[in-house]
Amino acid sequence: MNPIKHFANVDRRVLLSSLAMLPLLSATLRSTPAVAQSDPLPSWNEGATKASIVNFVVRVTAQGGPDFVPVNQRIATFDNDGTLWVEQPMYVQLAFALDRVKVMAPMHPEWKTKQPFAAALDGDMKAVAASGEKGLVEILAVTHAGMTTAEFEKITTEWLATARDHRFKRPYTELVYQPMLELLAYLRANGFKTFIASGGGIEFMRPWTERIYGIPPEQVIGSSIKTRFEFKDGAPTLFRLPDINFVDDKAGKPIGINEHIGRRPIAAFGNSDGDLEMLQWATVGASGVRFGLIVHHTDAVREYAYGPDSHVGKLSQSTLDAAAVNKWTVVNMKNDWKRIFSFD
Amino acid sequence: MNPIKHFANVDRRVLLSSLAMLPLLSATLRSTPAVAQSDPLPSWNEGATKASIVNFVVRVTAQGGPDFVPVNQRIATFDNDGTLWVEQPMYVQLAFALDRVKVMAPMHPEWKTKQPFAAALDGDMKAVAASGEKGLVEILAVTHAGMTTAEFEKITTEWLATARDHRFKRPYTELVYQPMLELLAYLRANGFKTFIASGGGIEFMRPWTERIYGIPPEQVIGSSIKTRFEFKDGAPTLFRLPDINFVDDKAGKPIGINEHIGRRPIAAFGNSDGDLEMLQWATVGASGVRFGLIVHHTDAVREYAYGPDSHVGKLSQSTLDAAAVNKWTVVNMKNDWKRIFSFD
Repeated sequence: MNPIKHFANVDRRVLLSSLAMLPLLSATLRSTPAVAQSDPLPSWNEGATKASIVNFVVRVTAQGGPDFVPVNQRIATFDNDGTLWVEQPMYVQLAFALDRVKVMAPMHPEWKTKQPFAAALDGDMKAVAASGEKGLVEILAVTHAGMTTAEFEKITTEWLATARDHRFKRPYTELVYQPMLELLAYLRANGFKTFIASGGGIEFMRPWTERIYGIPPEQVIGSSIKTRFEFKDGAPTLFRLPDINFVDDKAGKPIGINEHIGRRPIAAFGNSDGDLEMLQWATVGASGVRFGLIVHHTDAVREYAYGPDSHVGKLSQSTLDAAAVNKWTVVNMKNDWKRIFSFD
Repeated sequence: MNPIKHFANVDRRVLLSSLAMLPLLSATLRSTPAVAQSDPLPSWNEGATKASIVNFVVRVTAQGGPDFVPVNQRIATFDNDGTLWVEQPMYVQLAFALDRVKVMAPMHPEWKTKQPFAAALDGDMKAVAASGEKGLVEILAVTHAGMTTAEFEKITTEWLATARDHRFKRPYTELVYQPMLELLAYLRANGFKTFIASGGGIEFMRPWTERIYGIPPEQVIGSSIKTRFEFKDGAPTLFRLPDINFVDDKAGKPIGINEHIGRRPIAAFGNSDGDLEMLQWATVGASGVRFGLIVHHTDAVREYAYGPDSHVGKLSQSTLDAAAVNKWTVVNMKNDWKRIFSFD
């Protein structure tokens, strides 16, 4: 059995399912349990948003159709923070860095009076923010560099296993959006290769993206610091240096995508101004059917509501205007998502 | 049918086939045509080299065996120049650059008297070499930068379609080693993901690696120059800048592999001193069975014979010593390869 063909058949059933609200279709078809069970996006409410996703996938996978895309070109890139998991009230990676400052503080008594470390130790987020990019880079340098890549992986893995989000009282890796997990799986079932293209640290994400998202390390693109190859106790290691190597945000996203993937995605998924250029790179001025999607955080009750005025995950009107011009799908989280998290 | 399991079964037959020379096995088994036909490495002569490859693959794919490696960790990295295709008498990419200088010369009359361009136009390779790294960088800057990534792909693709190697009178993409093509396919059939990790330009390789090697662009790692995201005629482009971004050679190979793959390969394949650190990164001080292989060019009749004294693809005694210490397989091209090229 050809798995791609098989799933293409599933898609057509899905499309029928989403069209089942049309009065022309019989009540018998509409209520067939087998059809309902085949829905690969059960956490998405029926409507234009969900239909746009299914329509795109059906078109590019239809063998012999005018919009068919060969499997090797079915590349989809996803932002991480705010697109696949929660980014409020601060990026998870910043929470990690601040916790690391606390863990490392006994070895650095001078931090008690030195900014931005004193502010970080006091939990004074306003003062941390006031230290600006310079302060943030200082915090990142001491918490993210000065160890081998293997040691850093161990540190992040142990932290993620014990750290808890303050609002939801759960591990951060549970604060992933159930509808997006279904979307990732749906795309892969239709022959897509799914990538992350995040402003976050590439090595902060890789230890857990395969388990949580089904995205292996080699399909994770992110910001990075420089490393140095050296032998330690007879074994080769990569030592993490306090120097920025690459910032995978805004115009950096197409550059990082090109460096890692080497061809343009045909679909891209983001949630903020930082994803604009990635969405343009995937969809504008390119041949064939393309798909762009922006997750708009509109649900203060179940998650968060934010947009143009947010420091984290800022989504300006100009980016929403670009979405309208380029016919990108904008997810209204409150209306389009039946569930936000798997534990809802 | 589980394809992995299926191919693991094939491997066991292959192993039996390679052991068939043992007198203990019956003449009947030895001459069974079905067994002979299943050999996935027909261009490799029987012997210790071929057996080491098959032994490694059988061990890491044996479900329940002590050396079993899950599919997602079966990562293999290959050098390109001199490992997968011919690198003598000069790297193919340098031949491309010199041809480009000739094509571009009418727009640059000043090159007639300016080194290293004058030497390149005269075909004076000694003078080009005498211009050193500085001269080479100048040639690379004018031939590899100053256009979009899409334009560069078009230029390289057109050149490869028409350029011919002077000795073999064939397109460079035919000068790939048939035994290595079989090895790539054999590894993939056993669940490996195969990557290129080359000192050559990442965007010089990507347009053809999928067609020639079965390695898609997202599994190609190489040296790169910086790019700039910008709109041109209403479409987003990446403009290639004359600035080095990354040199994927020697200690750069583990760094590039970590940046692109995010985990250590369990097998690595090279041919020169430039591959030493990649081989170490894949095999030294790591848990589980690992495999390293060096292609030693020993066949001046069918290809080239070179090693410690060669400028291109230098293979020092110290690297061969490292191979002995770390139990890497060293391919003696003359003895181990039944055929070099598909047209042999």
